[in-house]
Amino acid sequence: MRKSTLSLAAISALAAPGVALAQEAAAPAAVPTDSVFILNSLLFLIGGFLVFWMAAGFAMLEAGLVRSKNVTMQLTKNVALFSLAAIFYYLIGYNLMYPLGTWSIDGVLSGVWGPGVLEAVGITAEQADDYSYASTGSDFFFQLMFCATTASIVSGTLAERIKLWPFLIFTIVLTAVIYPLQASWKWGGGFLDEMGFLDFAGSTVVHSVGGWAALTGALILGPRLGKYKGDKTIPMPGSNLALATLGTFILWLGWFGFNGGSQLAMGSVGDVADVSRIFANTNAAAAGGAVAALLLTQLLFKKPDLTMVLNGALAGLVSITAEPLTPSLGMSTLIGAVGGVIVVFVVPMLDKMKIDDVVGAIPVHLVAGIWGTLAVVLTNPDASLITQLTGIVVVALFVVIASAVVWLILRAVTGIRVDEEDEINGLDMAELGMEAYPEFSPS
Amino acid sequence: MRKSTLSLAAISALAAPGVALAQEAAAPAAVPTDSVFILNSLLFLIGGFLVFWMAAGFAMLEAGLVRSKNVTMQLTKNVALFSLAAIFYYLIGYNLMYPLGTWSIDGVLSGVWGPGVLEAVGITAEQADDYSYASTGSDFFFQLMFCATTASIVSGTLAERIKLWPFLIFTIVLTAVIYPLQASWKWGGGFLDEMGFLDFAGSTVVHSVGGWAALTGALILGPRLGKYKGDKTIPMPGSNLALATLGTFILWLGWFGFNGGSQLAMGSVGDVADVSRIFANTNAAAAGGAVAALLLTQLLFKKPDLTMVLNGALAGLVSITAEPLTPSLGMSTLIGAVGGVIVVFVVPMLDKMKIDDVVGAIPVHLVAGIWGTLAVVLTNPDASLITQLTGIVVVALFVVIASAVVWLILRAVTGIRVDEEDEINGLDMAELGMEAYPEFSPS
Amino acid sequence: MRKSTLSLAAISALAAPGVALAQEAAAPAAVPTDSVFILNSLLFLIGGFLVFWMAAGFAMLEAGLVRSKNVTMQLTKNVALFSLAAIFYYLIGYNLMYPLGTWSIDGVLSGVWGPGVLEAVGITAEQADDYSYASTGSDFFFQLMFCATTASIVSGTLAERIKLWPFLIFTIVLTAVIYPLQASWKWGGGFLDEMGFLDFAGSTVVHSVGGWAALTGALILGPRLGKYKGDKTIPMPGSNLALATLGTFILWLGWFGFNGGSQLAMGSVGDVADVSRIFANTNAAAAGGAVAALLLTQLLFKKPDLTMVLNGALAGLVSITAEPLTPSLGMSTLIGAVGGVIVVFVVPMLDKMKIDDVVGAIPVHLVAGIWGTLAVVLTNPDASLITQLTGIVVVALFVVIASAVVWLILRAVTGIRVDEEDEINGLDMAELGMEAYPEFSPS
Repeated sequence: MRKSTLSLAAISALAAPGVALAQEAAAPAAVPTDSVFILNSLLFLIGGFLVFWMAAGFAMLEAGLVRSKNVTMQLTKNVALFSLAAIFYYLIGYNLMYPLGTWSIDGVLSGVWGPGVLEAVGITAEQADDYSYASTGSDFFFQLMFCATTASIVSGTLAERIKLWPFLIFTIVLTAVIYPLQASWKWGGGFLDEMGFLDFAGSTVVHSVGGWAALTGALILGPRLGKYKGDKTIPMPGSNLALATLGTFILWLGWFGFNGGSQLAMGSVGDVADVSRIFANTNAAAAGGAVAALLLTQLLFKKPDLTMVLNGALAGLVSITAEPLTPSLGMSTLIGAVGGVIVVFVVPMLDKMKIDDVVGAIPVHLVAGIWGTLAVVLTNPDASLITQLTGIVVVALFVVIASAVVWLILRAVTGIRVDEEDEINGLDMAELGMEAYPEFSPS
Repeated sequence: MRKSTLSLAAISALAAPGVALAQEAAAPAAVPTDSVFILNSLLFLIGGFLVFWMAAGFAMLEAGLVRSKNVTMQLTKNVALFSLAAIFYYLIGYNLMYPLGTWSIDGVLSGVWGPGVLEAVGITAEQADDYSYASTGSDFFFQLMFCATTASIVSGTLAERIKLWPFLIFTIVLTAVIYPLQASWKWGGGFLDEMGFLDFAGSTVVHSVGGWAALTGALILGPRLGKYKGDKTIPMPGSNLALATLGTFILWLGWFGFNGGSQLAMGSVGDVADVSRIFANTNAAAAGGAVAALLLTQLLFKKPDLTMVLNGALAGLVSITAEPLTPSLGMSTLIGAVGGVIVVFVVPMLDKMKIDDVVGAIPVHLVAGIWGTLAVVLTNPDASLITQLTGIVVVALFVVIASAVVWLILRAVTGIRVDEEDEINGLDMAELGMEAYPEFSPS
Repeated sequence: MRKSTLSLAAISALAAPGVALAQEAAAPAAVPTDSVFILNSLLFLIGGFLVFWMAAGFAMLEAGLVRSKNVTMQLTKNVALFSLAAIFYYLIGYNLMYPLGTWSIDGVLSGVWGPGVLEAVGITAEQADDYSYASTGSDFFFQLMFCATTASIVSGTLAERIKLWPFLIFTIVLTAVIYPLQASWKWGGGFLDEMGFLDFAGSTVVHSVGGWAALTGALILGPRLGKYKGDKTIPMPGSNLALATLGTFILWLGWFGFNGGSQLAMGSVGDVADVSRIFANTNAAAAGGAVAALLLTQLLFKKPDLTMVLNGALAGLVSITAEPLTPSLGMSTLIGAVGGVIVVFVVPMLDKMKIDDVVGAIPVHLVAGIWGTLAVVLTNPDASLITQLTGIVVVALFVVIASAVVWLILRAVTGIRVDEEDEINGLDMAELGMEAYPEFSPS
């Protein structure tokens, strides 16, 4: 019986020079806590570079789906928006999103205005900002990529007619304020999180936000010249489907980091098994979306439509993003397949409403994002459909209003649309004086 | 002496709340067993996303090597085949491949028919399906990508003339049954494994299987119209060598995951050092293959041939896949170089036999796959050339017969070849109604 | 009090069968030393495959920035130079770079001539070449990619006019001797390292070396025909800006491995937090460079210039490479922004000097590399501007002289420039007989 009086603390004391032993004895898991910190940080770094890669995916997808006269502009916008997101999320967004402030308006504005600050060089375990989590640098790196993704979504919808600089100014407001503010409501521990709203990796927080901002912009900007003649929609096929397919594969790859990294931890058996589930489910949903769009376009139009298949895969990915963990592989495939179906039906529906979405970002990111957020209830017994709907609506109202204000101010002050002649000649020559494929210009 | 009576179990008991201490004390290695599980799973996740990326590589390589009138179709096939592989490997293939069944025909059919099931959310060490290995999700994710690679190989050979849907139905049979069944003979612990057949990452199990299925299809399908006139081979140059080169680089990158991940473990000094050897050797073999093809085409044709160089690199990669661990860097370079030589000689040889392999997948994946499987004996003293040959032949017979049956049924039931006019006009307009580069159509 | 007599060694002894416990008790950190070895090796493997990916980035960037008649050649050069670098760094460079030799000329030539040798298969902790560091295979893999990067830099500058084989012979000398020799002065513990020269990931050791070799080659080779008419520079726009943008994104992604991996360790809280800082800072610098070029080209030329923005991002990356760890996020952004400014001013300056740098590699890798090396003093109080300048000058002198000797010998022996007619017709048809885009040839 005497042994039982030898407490854990005593064991630790015995091993005083052996810090390792002491720390591990205090930890409930077989993985040393330093290793947990390292593995979690590593998850963010790997997840982060994969999500960074999605910026290239959006650039290629959009460059492939616009006409050749607007390719240089679309590429310029994508590089610029990512770069500005990096700067303004650092200057304002990051600290606004996460609870740091003492003056915060509780639950609505939890962070502080001001630049993000990384942990010092060569910290020890004691100096880590959050030793049980991960390094601040890895967290910042990962979170930044989500913010940039939101901005990438907007550029595709508004392609071929929006001016460069007003678009970039919108990007700044979106990444500095709009995205971080609403993201703090869920991921900063704000009121949406407190009411039980579930959004694992951001079907609503990231994808629908980009989608709402894009939709608002599309309504204010209007469709491209000649896109709608009476009730007819004039096809304006993308100039390079190989690029569009490459972009889709890049996004698919990046999504493993997007969803997998959102587990936020990899330092235990349960966490790494969960990350593994998420990778497998994410892939299944993309496959489901692609196959659904393939079959449906074959059935409806008698000819499979590659752009629908690509957007179907992306919609599958968005659909599983709100809950990539709890579904089975089969359920993930089905959730993704519904995303593919959404794309096939919503793309022509938007055209009927004369909402001109050049690359299909609204069906993919907004409508499938809403679907994914609702689908959370299918595999989470405790989730509430009402709460999910509330989250969707609250975010929608905020983003639509905030975006509309910004777009309308920009329209009043600088104008947001290139003039008619420039649009016809293409933005590349008009705004940039540089063609993407100068030797292959169509006659 | 009293201390020695304090047994290990007693120490564990002392530290009752410190589970970590107890578990580690029981472990024979300095890396905690939870960490081994995590690191192995992480290897599969990283390896898996790299092999996923190979799907994009095949898509770009093939889109670059077909003529522009068939690019949209080739892209569609690649996205669709990967998606179908994901679904059917989940529905049937995965469990068929690995020993799970009680009714299995021992050594030949070790698995069970039925959908793959992942481990539950948030498992503990005790709940892990195989705690000494890795999470089921990571294993499934990794294994799926190998199955999909096999299907990707087929699409390139049969490009520019095969109908979409019959090709996809073949893909389903290949990924649901043909690949998993023969893979179980080696990797599921079946009879090839028991007889000592060695194939580390699949020169035979993956690459030659894709190659045999492609060859069988090419023989049944016949060459493209106008490819062979009498004894002359008419060149049909690929439409975009930049894409083809990109595809090759993607495949090269993905191969680090393909071969490195096949170590199946990263949780010990020896395992991570082995994975490192494999990365270095894989790269050396690709370099050897590329340089061999570069030099040989310069010597033979007086002009280096980029498509040969690209396929030389890929053949180098296939050649080292059966044994990327034991060779030295120099030996790996040489093994890869032989792969490059194979490409330069087999490509024209196939043309002489009027076997029309659009992208060169048969020399790269089949012939270099056979070479790689035989080369195993060079650096494995215990390996038997007879056993290696037996494995190659058994797999060949099974895949050729099974593929032929499927291709012949498809030819009889639906037809597998587009009609003459459609082939001349290109599959893009005929079957899909969508051009890949609509603004740059050749006059 | 009795407890305190129970020493740590005794505790270890108690747990005799528990090797893990013993080893960890002896280790000063909570992460078991085996895990440190594994994590460090893993950092090199991940970093290595990311830097490998940069080879694809250079290939795409350069293929996009040359005219279509030279695309196949540029692709061929990029695949070939990487492959040759892999072989000759293995045969000569690796051992030349790192201190192994007994006959070494101390501090100047620290290594030995001869092929690199990996650790044996399945080593134990005791058999590891450097147990406190990482596996030899992972180190070789990572270091090789840096050597290959140096070679990639050269090919862009000299595009569209240099003969294939002389260029490849130069590549061999560069990767076998020139790069490793000077790299050993810093990274092999040579005299530059001993005098306190700081270059974290190679603004000087990698990027300026490639830049100096390129500049020397450009001076000896001369500008492209028709590039300069009197005082006028004739624009020769790149054929595919989508590819160039893809290449830039690939390089940006790869740079996380380039700089992050150069921490050389990930097995402690401090190391992984530092790697995280480096990822975040590297991204910030790229963003700063891109935005600076965007704003500056808008201000100076009234139209943003995509190629300047792309090179601005790359110059930002080069600028932060000498010290990606110590700066804050804001300082990193500024250091990168200066890189972007450099690009915008140096590109036309080179044209005025009639130095024809096809892709802008000299401003990006050489001038921004010098800037980055000097910028080290901004955030390292102990760094000496004189020492940094000394390192820059010493490396410059060595590389310029060595390169010039090689280029001049090649010019005398084989000639390095294609003849006039071939240059006008394009290197693809003249030297390779193969067009990159055969169906889209400009009329």
